[in-house]
Amino acid sequence: MEHKEISKAVIARLPRYYRYLGELKDEKVERVSSMELSELMHVTASQIRQDLNHFGGFGQQGYGYNVAFLYDEIGKILGLDQKHHLVLIGAGHLGQALANYVNFERRGFLIKGIFDRDEKLHGMKIRGIEVRPMEELEQFIRKHDIDIGVLTIPKNGAIEVSETLVRGGIKAIWNFAHVDLNVPDNILVENVHLSESLMKLSYMIDRAKER
Amino acid sequence: MEHKEISKAVIARLPRYYRYLGELKDEKVERVSSMELSELMHVTASQIRQDLNHFGGFGQQGYGYNVAFLYDEIGKILGLDQKHHLVLIGAGHLGQALANYVNFERRGFLIKGIFDRDEKLHGMKIRGIEVRPMEELEQFIRKHDIDIGVLTIPKNGAIEVSETLVRGGIKAIWNFAHVDLNVPDNILVENVHLSESLMKLSYMIDRAKER
Repeated sequence: MEHKEISKAVIARLPRYYRYLGELKDEKVERVSSMELSELMHVTASQIRQDLNHFGGFGQQGYGYNVAFLYDEIGKILGLDQKHHLVLIGAGHLGQALANYVNFERRGFLIKGIFDRDEKLHGMKIRGIEVRPMEELEQFIRKHDIDIGVLTIPKNGAIEVSETLVRGGIKAIWNFAHVDLNVPDNILVENVHLSESLMKLSYMIDRAKER
Repeated sequence: MEHKEISKAVIARLPRYYRYLGELKDEKVERVSSMELSELMHVTASQIRQDLNHFGGFGQQGYGYNVAFLYDEIGKILGLDQKHHLVLIGAGHLGQALANYVNFERRGFLIKGIFDRDEKLHGMKIRGIEVRPMEELEQFIRKHDIDIGVLTIPKNGAIEVSETLVRGGIKAIWNFAHVDLNVPDNILVENVHLSESLMKLSYMIDRAKER
């Protein structure tokens, strides 16, 4: 299938469609119209039709969308029909939170290794996965065909670790460290800067007060 | 100061300016030109001038921006000169990760209470803050003038808890539960849907492979 002209905005909305369709599927709903989806998701029906039209003719006039089919198709578009191998760097609270999140696994994101520079954590297991020393990281990535590195460490050291990930041959970094990584253009980076998300909220609270 | 015409895009960029200016300030840098900021932040100098012009004439031709002043001003715009009171609902791994994140406190986000429905956790302390039963939540919000509720619980139950938060008089919800909350329009919601962020990355990896 061709996906050349899909805008970033549409892509950003796909996981939300996927979530709602998954819930409908769990409830054994077989078909859904763009109007029904519109009410559930608080998005206009025309936006839904436009978005879903990017992926070919899933909908049918007077019939609506086949929930299971659309769910699977969007899953494929999102690459969820394939397994992704992850390493997690940083076995602190946030790292443990992510390692314990079973939904990632269910969607094909498999944490293969956890790394930390703190010797005291080495050998400890989080959901059966051993915490290893940083020195083993580069080779581990090569050996286990790792796609994604997850950085759950403070900003000091994050740049250095990102360089190790790149040398090991990683394709993408999910970055929770509060710093912008400076990696080659072919390495994909998705930043989750929690402080910045909280600051946006703080901004909005203060503006709301002024009104 | 008036901030009426500031677009969401500019607001979304402010925390990043704040971070870079904070780093320059820590390095005792007194002035910075839009060109220098541009190189650091990988944003065009004209974008920087345009963004910062929204907040009045901080910059001066041939002098640049006063780092400490601009840092403080952006901090004020983001509401970081004011204290915000938070409650955290869900004392699991993610809740503990957030409760242990000292930077929030430094920026005026004070976690006043932690709540969980699991009896076994009641009385436990996380950084000195006691975990309390859900039954006390609504009254706690009123008594301690809580602004922000942080939801670090699974999606089941999140809607119900969000209703309790609203009844208690919360202003904003920082939502990590994987569900869209359905709260009144005057309640601000900032969603952090980690699975969706990971799916975007997976999408990008698969597209990159096709190239």
